[in-house]
Amino acid sequence: MDLAGKRIGVLTSGGDCAGLNAVVRAVVHRAVQGYGMKVVGIEQGTAGLLARPVMVRELEPSLFTGDILRRGGTILGTTNKGNPFSYEMPDGQVLDRSEEIIEAYRELGLHALIGIGGDGSMAILRQLAEQGGLNFIGVPKTIDNDLGHTEVSVGYATAVDIATQALDQLQPTAASHSRVMVLEVMGRDAGHIALNAGVAGGADIILIPEVKYSLASIKRKIERIYAEGRNFSLVIVAEAVRDEEGRKVTETQASGAVTYGGIGEYISHRIAEETGAETRVTVLGHLQRGGVPSARDRIMGSTFGVHAVDLVAAGKFDRLVAWSGRHCFDVPLQEAIAGYRAVQPDSSVMLTARGLGICFGDD
Amino acid sequence: MDLAGKRIGVLTSGGDCAGLNAVVRAVVHRAVQGYGMKVVGIEQGTAGLLARPVMVRELEPSLFTGDILRRGGTILGTTNKGNPFSYEMPDGQVLDRSEEIIEAYRELGLHALIGIGGDGSMAILRQLAEQGGLNFIGVPKTIDNDLGHTEVSVGYATAVDIATQALDQLQPTAASHSRVMVLEVMGRDAGHIALNAGVAGGADIILIPEVKYSLASIKRKIERIYAEGRNFSLVIVAEAVRDEEGRKVTETQASGAVTYGGIGEYISHRIAEETGAETRVTVLGHLQRGGVPSARDRIMGSTFGVHAVDLVAAGKFDRLVAWSGRHCFDVPLQEAIAGYRAVQPDSSVMLTARGLGICFGDD
Amino acid sequence: MDLAGKRIGVLTSGGDCAGLNAVVRAVVHRAVQGYGMKVVGIEQGTAGLLARPVMVRELEPSLFTGDILRRGGTILGTTNKGNPFSYEMPDGQVLDRSEEIIEAYRELGLHALIGIGGDGSMAILRQLAEQGGLNFIGVPKTIDNDLGHTEVSVGYATAVDIATQALDQLQPTAASHSRVMVLEVMGRDAGHIALNAGVAGGADIILIPEVKYSLASIKRKIERIYAEGRNFSLVIVAEAVRDEEGRKVTETQASGAVTYGGIGEYISHRIAEETGAETRVTVLGHLQRGGVPSARDRIMGSTFGVHAVDLVAAGKFDRLVAWSGRHCFDVPLQEAIAGYRAVQPDSSVMLTARGLGICFGDD
Amino acid sequence: MDLAGKRIGVLTSGGDCAGLNAVVRAVVHRAVQGYGMKVVGIEQGTAGLLARPVMVRELEPSLFTGDILRRGGTILGTTNKGNPFSYEMPDGQVLDRSEEIIEAYRELGLHALIGIGGDGSMAILRQLAEQGGLNFIGVPKTIDNDLGHTEVSVGYATAVDIATQALDQLQPTAASHSRVMVLEVMGRDAGHIALNAGVAGGADIILIPEVKYSLASIKRKIERIYAEGRNFSLVIVAEAVRDEEGRKVTETQASGAVTYGGIGEYISHRIAEETGAETRVTVLGHLQRGGVPSARDRIMGSTFGVHAVDLVAAGKFDRLVAWSGRHCFDVPLQEAIAGYRAVQPDSSVMLTARGLGICFGDD
Repeated sequence: MDLAGKRIGVLTSGGDCAGLNAVVRAVVHRAVQGYGMKVVGIEQGTAGLLARPVMVRELEPSLFTGDILRRGGTILGTTNKGNPFSYEMPDGQVLDRSEEIIEAYRELGLHALIGIGGDGSMAILRQLAEQGGLNFIGVPKTIDNDLGHTEVSVGYATAVDIATQALDQLQPTAASHSRVMVLEVMGRDAGHIALNAGVAGGADIILIPEVKYSLASIKRKIERIYAEGRNFSLVIVAEAVRDEEGRKVTETQASGAVTYGGIGEYISHRIAEETGAETRVTVLGHLQRGGVPSARDRIMGSTFGVHAVDLVAAGKFDRLVAWSGRHCFDVPLQEAIAGYRAVQPDSSVMLTARGLGICFGDD
Repeated sequence: MDLAGKRIGVLTSGGDCAGLNAVVRAVVHRAVQGYGMKVVGIEQGTAGLLARPVMVRELEPSLFTGDILRRGGTILGTTNKGNPFSYEMPDGQVLDRSEEIIEAYRELGLHALIGIGGDGSMAILRQLAEQGGLNFIGVPKTIDNDLGHTEVSVGYATAVDIATQALDQLQPTAASHSRVMVLEVMGRDAGHIALNAGVAGGADIILIPEVKYSLASIKRKIERIYAEGRNFSLVIVAEAVRDEEGRKVTETQASGAVTYGGIGEYISHRIAEETGAETRVTVLGHLQRGGVPSARDRIMGSTFGVHAVDLVAAGKFDRLVAWSGRHCFDVPLQEAIAGYRAVQPDSSVMLTARGLGICFGDD
Repeated sequence: MDLAGKRIGVLTSGGDCAGLNAVVRAVVHRAVQGYGMKVVGIEQGTAGLLARPVMVRELEPSLFTGDILRRGGTILGTTNKGNPFSYEMPDGQVLDRSEEIIEAYRELGLHALIGIGGDGSMAILRQLAEQGGLNFIGVPKTIDNDLGHTEVSVGYATAVDIATQALDQLQPTAASHSRVMVLEVMGRDAGHIALNAGVAGGADIILIPEVKYSLASIKRKIERIYAEGRNFSLVIVAEAVRDEEGRKVTETQASGAVTYGGIGEYISHRIAEETGAETRVTVLGHLQRGGVPSARDRIMGSTFGVHAVDLVAAGKFDRLVAWSGRHCFDVPLQEAIAGYRAVQPDSSVMLTARGLGICFGDD
Repeated sequence: MDLAGKRIGVLTSGGDCAGLNAVVRAVVHRAVQGYGMKVVGIEQGTAGLLARPVMVRELEPSLFTGDILRRGGTILGTTNKGNPFSYEMPDGQVLDRSEEIIEAYRELGLHALIGIGGDGSMAILRQLAEQGGLNFIGVPKTIDNDLGHTEVSVGYATAVDIATQALDQLQPTAASHSRVMVLEVMGRDAGHIALNAGVAGGADIILIPEVKYSLASIKRKIERIYAEGRNFSLVIVAEAVRDEEGRKVTETQASGAVTYGGIGEYISHRIAEETGAETRVTVLGHLQRGGVPSARDRIMGSTFGVHAVDLVAAGKFDRLVAWSGRHCFDVPLQEAIAGYRAVQPDSSVMLTARGLGICFGDD
């Protein structure tokens, strides 16, 4: 099939992360120079296809000669709001606007759409593709790394690096002041960032949603550390961890008389109460998303971008590109969306953490 | 005077920061190799002299051959609790324990004491020195850089670097999501970190305790940015900034129905209310203290350590080492303690910030 | 089998790299806390077992509570000289000293030996184990990543990060001065570092030993870049690449009248000659080995260390720990040594590089 | 005087470095938003004014809203070739082309020119200004920091940071392999980078052009280190250091039978010969120029840019902006060019280095 002159669209959707620009750059290079196609960058995720006029721009390889690989975020812009199937209008009304997107795809004369997103975005984009008969390819990105059929998603490696660096920065101040330092990291419902950064950064205690903890266990660990002659400890906790009774800890949740800003603050206060230790909490927040993409995210993102265009060229649609070991491959999108991956208790990194004597609060 | 064999003590006091180990290393090298003295490291600040037995260890140059320069915090440990003149005992009683410290100094046979600390520590140590006739030299350290008679204190340069890097990490995610990103940094009552990191990191709005702001002014700035076609902005706010009515914003303070965790969160909420923008807040917290000391803090710290020992050798006591331009010098400690330095409205960096069109909320 | 009280030895061998301390730390934690064993650290690789008295020290978990994870190199010391089977004595005589090592193993009362090294070290250690009936487990480390049965070896990830960062630093100066910047990286006979850092760092041209290049091809690529309106380019070259005639480029090799310090310098001069471009060369050298280990090398190293001890505990010897995808496993050492891995022409990252239009000098 | 609508030109000249974009950004912001002027960016230094048509572009504040502060190099391009007073034409003829530049200044209708450069560029630009009656302001930039009337020049702080980081990376590999590691850094005829990075990075030996060394002294230092039980040492050497006989060490210089690539290689070989130590050399090269500008270079660069425009607005020309302590000021350009600054033997950092026992090869 002659692809020369055909147009493909590319968009980023959901929360931003490091490595997105590597994907977009690779898509443009491969499509334009490899196949003579044209690439249309769609701005602000699906919102760019809902706007009239649509928010798009032609993407040329010459845009990507400078330092785009080194830049965090996405030059296309993104949003994690506005599901087109149940779109909340300014007046509060909720509309199904999916046909507007399909219409935009047609009017742009797109041959295919490459969407870079997490599981939520993939589900929406796949539904759009099915409904409108769009040629769709998905590229996985999420700092949470909770997509099951790929070993890594774009953005995850950099997030782990940044969280590890945060523990590196907290360790000397913990040791200097004989403190228990609590670091709260992202990860949505999964504990991958906390687990991996915890192992890399030398955490003593790692709390993840996949393991139920007790404060008694944490207390024993901290006392054991003191007994061994060390005066400080490092705790890393994933954002989705609940309080000891299993309740979500948010700004508005009150446990008795005290209100906590989040799980990090809750754990910090509770450890202080239980052990008498001086504690401090740091919420890493959006620092995890930004920053210079790591080499790994750039390589992964570049590989995904090239492979996605090759799938378009091969006429294989409704698939997600993925990574395992040293290989890039692709899986049916349907399967990928279904394959949520939490931290497995017998995964190698969990066994490592256990083997290092790291406490998960469950012993 | 023959100094060979004389013992000097060195301690770190108050909040930890980057560069303290460079000072201690330089003190040991200079004293032992330059003058044949011995150096006693006192642990946990003045607490090490209150403990019985005292918490001290001999420091040899051979301890400092590895990567000590690269390590944050202080290998001696420190504390910002326990003023010996009004020491709160476990039973709640408040005692003057200053004589115990003077006694420890005598029993250790110290010829002089070098104390590395901020203004609070310097005031206490000077009072101890006066009362007990101790030979004392102070070395300035504070990430807040609020000591008046020295251009820079140990720890400040690294804190500015880390806060700048945080803005670097927040900028791409702000741009990707069309958000207003608020970063809360330390600095106690002074705005030096916020001002300098704000200029270096490309902040649009800098809020410091030295300048009274209004939300109306902030709102105008953000609207002006949108009008110029930019979709995001960066705000940096010093921890001591108050709410619009001048009240301290803490976890327990409530402004109407809403409770804020700190000034960053307050500003973030208020900007969202006033402008409709999507906002996010990051509290940098203890990340500012730790981490690998910058080259500048290592050079400064090394210079201060050498100079402090040279003062001991010259028999000049009751002085603070200081820095200006390219030169290390020393000033009477009394003067140094009195010389608090806030951000001056006509300082070069303030004029720069104004010249760049950065908003301080006062126009 | 009761392992309590048994002693295992651990040594690092061959060129140092980032992540070795993570392995040693994990070995000690797992062996001492998990199984009640004792760990003897052997200094300077096999040289420590050749010395009399042997150069060893007991390793306790308490040694590893600080920032050891963050430190490059190996606290045990290492060497890439002195094959015990053909040991060159100071007087030039070459001796087989293998029995001395086996004797040292016995006299130390070791139950097993964990050796961290590359393929050369593994071959020697395996031969020693066979000859002396030692219980041996290997852990793969090499920045070259040329061991075939493991996806990654300890040290490789950090080396790629550092080489990528070097390209990040060279790009703006290349663009500012309209230059062709040549970066020479390590990798022994394999091109993994050059390929991966090249893709991550935005190289235009990647030269690796696995692909034969011509200067004519390189010239065409650079002219194409100019034709597209870009004024600079980035070239990364692996140390083992030969000159155009296939000869090794070393300090002593002369190509006509000119002598080159290495392949980077050769390529830089030849590009200048062929294209008239202003070129500059940077030889990254030992910077690739040192530095703060990346999160990935710390996780990998920790996992390998735990797994190696678990193999000892399970009585499984003569094996190499390895990594694939998300899993740590182990393979027969014999097989691992044989399985050299160069860059495969159809590997995903090669296809990515080709897909991005990166020139390998072969078209 | 009404400045609204007047045009000023800005150019970067000489070797690139970090922080140049901060100056250009500040010039544009201040001129356009502060005074209603227009700013013309001149490309490739004075070469942009020699070209016909001239190579210029209007610079708007909106160009500087992204991550320009974080980018190394100069967006305007630069060159360190082509003195317009003795310009070497392609045919080898040398012409005085100064009038062409003056003519371009006039035809562009410039009210003033801001030139960012080192001492060589300043001398040329000042001569042009005098000859043509141009309104000229200079902004100092040089990683060598050898301009006498300013404490720091743009680019120097980042270069010291990068050289320090290189020592940080070399230290663990030096210690692991019991090696003497030699790092060659830039600095032209001055030793500022070597001295400051050497102190910050824990060098044992610092060789700078300002201090005459002997290999005997270096040998004694290395032997002293071994005697104290340390197995490695770090040497930093400035590029302009000569061989022991005072001869320049270049690629073509031969000392007896051996040819050295540069002073680093020479020192490395000679130390190996003299002490029997295993040595390795790293030439940092262009890595020192590029990379993300440090906070200090961004603050300094921003301040210089604003101040330069304020001088234009005040009608004060023929001046160089400068920095001392916490203050930005300006000096007559004539004076600034004359004020070369080498490392002073009694400067604070030299005294610090001596006080730390660092060897300069002169004892």
